[in-house]
Amino acid sequence: MPNNLALGKEQLWSRRQLLKLGVCGTGMIGAAALLQMANGKIKSIVKVPPVEIEAAQGVAQPMKVLRDFDYGTLKRENGRIIREFSLTASTSIIELNSAVSYNIWDLNGRIPGPTLRAKQGDRVRILFLNKAGHSHSLHFHGVHPSNMDGVRPVSNGSATIYEFDAEPYGVHLYHCHIEPVTRHIAKGLYGMFIIDPPNPRPPADEIVLVMAGYDVNDDSRNEYYAFNGPPHYYMDNPIRIYQNQLIRLYVLNIIEYDPAVTFHLHANFFDVYRTGMTLTPSEKTDVITMGVAERHILEFAFRYPGKYMFHPHQDAIAENGCMGQFEVI
Amino acid sequence: MPNNLALGKEQLWSRRQLLKLGVCGTGMIGAAALLQMANGKIKSIVKVPPVEIEAAQGVAQPMKVLRDFDYGTLKRENGRIIREFSLTASTSIIELNSAVSYNIWDLNGRIPGPTLRAKQGDRVRILFLNKAGHSHSLHFHGVHPSNMDGVRPVSNGSATIYEFDAEPYGVHLYHCHIEPVTRHIAKGLYGMFIIDPPNPRPPADEIVLVMAGYDVNDDSRNEYYAFNGPPHYYMDNPIRIYQNQLIRLYVLNIIEYDPAVTFHLHANFFDVYRTGMTLTPSEKTDVITMGVAERHILEFAFRYPGKYMFHPHQDAIAENGCMGQFEVI
Amino acid sequence: MPNNLALGKEQLWSRRQLLKLGVCGTGMIGAAALLQMANGKIKSIVKVPPVEIEAAQGVAQPMKVLRDFDYGTLKRENGRIIREFSLTASTSIIELNSAVSYNIWDLNGRIPGPTLRAKQGDRVRILFLNKAGHSHSLHFHGVHPSNMDGVRPVSNGSATIYEFDAEPYGVHLYHCHIEPVTRHIAKGLYGMFIIDPPNPRPPADEIVLVMAGYDVNDDSRNEYYAFNGPPHYYMDNPIRIYQNQLIRLYVLNIIEYDPAVTFHLHANFFDVYRTGMTLTPSEKTDVITMGVAERHILEFAFRYPGKYMFHPHQDAIAENGCMGQFEVI
Repeated sequence: MPNNLALGKEQLWSRRQLLKLGVCGTGMIGAAALLQMANGKIKSIVKVPPVEIEAAQGVAQPMKVLRDFDYGTLKRENGRIIREFSLTASTSIIELNSAVSYNIWDLNGRIPGPTLRAKQGDRVRILFLNKAGHSHSLHFHGVHPSNMDGVRPVSNGSATIYEFDAEPYGVHLYHCHIEPVTRHIAKGLYGMFIIDPPNPRPPADEIVLVMAGYDVNDDSRNEYYAFNGPPHYYMDNPIRIYQNQLIRLYVLNIIEYDPAVTFHLHANFFDVYRTGMTLTPSEKTDVITMGVAERHILEFAFRYPGKYMFHPHQDAIAENGCMGQFEVI
Repeated sequence: MPNNLALGKEQLWSRRQLLKLGVCGTGMIGAAALLQMANGKIKSIVKVPPVEIEAAQGVAQPMKVLRDFDYGTLKRENGRIIREFSLTASTSIIELNSAVSYNIWDLNGRIPGPTLRAKQGDRVRILFLNKAGHSHSLHFHGVHPSNMDGVRPVSNGSATIYEFDAEPYGVHLYHCHIEPVTRHIAKGLYGMFIIDPPNPRPPADEIVLVMAGYDVNDDSRNEYYAFNGPPHYYMDNPIRIYQNQLIRLYVLNIIEYDPAVTFHLHANFFDVYRTGMTLTPSEKTDVITMGVAERHILEFAFRYPGKYMFHPHQDAIAENGCMGQFEVI
Repeated sequence: MPNNLALGKEQLWSRRQLLKLGVCGTGMIGAAALLQMANGKIKSIVKVPPVEIEAAQGVAQPMKVLRDFDYGTLKRENGRIIREFSLTASTSIIELNSAVSYNIWDLNGRIPGPTLRAKQGDRVRILFLNKAGHSHSLHFHGVHPSNMDGVRPVSNGSATIYEFDAEPYGVHLYHCHIEPVTRHIAKGLYGMFIIDPPNPRPPADEIVLVMAGYDVNDDSRNEYYAFNGPPHYYMDNPIRIYQNQLIRLYVLNIIEYDPAVTFHLHANFFDVYRTGMTLTPSEKTDVITMGVAERHILEFAFRYPGKYMFHPHQDAIAENGCMGQFEVI
């Protein structure tokens, strides 16, 4: 059973505090730096265009979300390495367009929450602090014992720890599992959880796309949709990628209220790795149906430069914000 | 063409009556007992927790439905073995919760109807008696001649016989095909039809899960949903299974009015045998999209004890009743 | 970038005109006849029942649409062969039933538009003339450069040319991509685009089925549905096929407003070639979920004569017109 740690309303949660409470490990190691090196090495043969990330964008940070992977902090405890993540739920306001703002719950100040990333077999620990004014939880998709399933409420001002072995490899997700789950998900409490296979996938420009919806008038239908936070963002700010560079999309459909959407890429076809749980693709297409909580790895490269749209082919959903462009340079 | 046998309104349909009408075979054989032995042998290495089944639950019998397979009665006719099933449609009332009852049509006094089970190549005969106050039929998914397709109405008080070879192996279904089919299905006239492969699948704890919806106010939207009959049942009465025991789910989505749902299992992943028509899985995931009338075999085992939810990830559907738990012991 | 050719409102667009404008090739060759011979040869071992096609049916030509493949015109330019298609958008009225007519946009006087067909590697040129009283475009699914992606408006009275290499093989589609795309698709601007593999698929009776919807009261829901144009047509006029003849269905779901449908075939099972992009099937079933813009090749043969229905198993969609029958003779 996760420990629920009562915290004062105004308290900031920190690793220091948890150390005091005796829930942290005995030492930090240099593996994080090692990982950086490994990443650096891989990136030497992967071409990723420079991205300008605005300094202060509030909770909507679509350019950052694209290629931002949270590998956590590596610690050694009792001879075993622990990959530790910190997630804090808060309340925020997202501007859906120039006229419409919407109250959401965020994780670590962003929507969608951080893309957590581990390697199969890692011991994973998630320190979850709830400062979002309501009971919440984090339910992870993946194998873990019942008491780590994240279906128990963590009250506002409390914290808990989820800990389990990261398995199996694939592209998974986490989200709040407090009823009504539709509402808790639709208001922002979700993120991607990638578990890498023991032998890493081939080098690629890796990009995260999370499809979500916003029901701003509380009628159990979405009025707005988006990739990675704000509607229509990548239409105005295309995702720049290099010609002939292998692109690896991690795509998640977490649109509540709509039973399923397709993901369509223009002028190209992608290899599908269902749930990211295979190392060889099972099919090739340019339109794939994804029910709520389905997620896949999609791989492709563009042969010709230019701009190429991507969107669900439920075109009303696309035109209400779940639409973007790649700019191949 | 099936024979339509006119019966008086109050008459009970029986094998004796059909024998009089000359539509039954020439003798019974001992194969049914043989089958029991074969089943007994298999079960000796499959661990299934004891299940308490309430004596009288009316039309909703979710604990019984779970592992109740109707193998029919084996008969020999002209040197060939016939597997004969009897299905009678009636009217019933299901209690969806303490405040809401709903008039349905049942088959053999239950909703969903019996899980019929045969082996590939069996000659299958279904004796269908309609006592449900309206014209109905039984349309089987599977290979059969046009006149056995079950799209012709069988009027109230009448009976008919469907007969065909059971093929190909897989997890199939049957349902009423009288217009409006949405209404006839949504009011209860459906069941699973399993055809086992020539070489049986590996021993497992085999469990049937039928997802259905209830449109109680006739607005072509479902207000309630359920696994195997009554909403929310397995949340309050978890399905007990053993740790590390291979579980084989036969899952059918027969929810009308919603175009598709996903099936999600917590804290685990399952092997997918699409339509049950393969002996090797095609993919592994924990969320799979199933359109209306799709059905799959899903296999898994739980490593850790405890309670684990399962539900469509269209969370409004889950929260309106299509939600359950396994209790791993 | 495609050339936009301004034409007077009343002008008829012709190959002669484009020749004047210098956009056509230098000569015609006899390859079209050669192709006919090749087709003739293949058909000698494929049995297709004679079909009576009414002389004048207006924009709804379901019997013609079934097996009508537009191979374009072969031309040689600079030593390379070009396969040239001509598509003209116009306005039409379709009779959905005896009481309801609906204003649509058609392509070459039919709905759905012509089934364009090329071989992988062909250079394909599409001459698109817009006479439909509104800006339109043709967006092709398939690999092509950004400037051939068909997302730029072609104003009424104008023409443009799309040109690219046909690849990869599969069953693809084209449709108008002018916002609101839902509306432009739902009003008829779509068609199938088949690219044959280098080594042709085995001989078969090849049949096109395009599932579409009609939102006649503009409420973003479909009131009518159909295969290949008019609702319910193949129920009253079954598609005649021969017993034991391999049937190859090219099925496209272009129903807007509904997120996904299933395609179900009665009394049989089909091999699935997802997006037509494989030469070996990936699965066998009788119900397959297809999101908007998904399309597959489905293969089967009927063993027994008679009539067999096909329809989405979202039964309200079937009963509002997306329902048909094969008659096996």
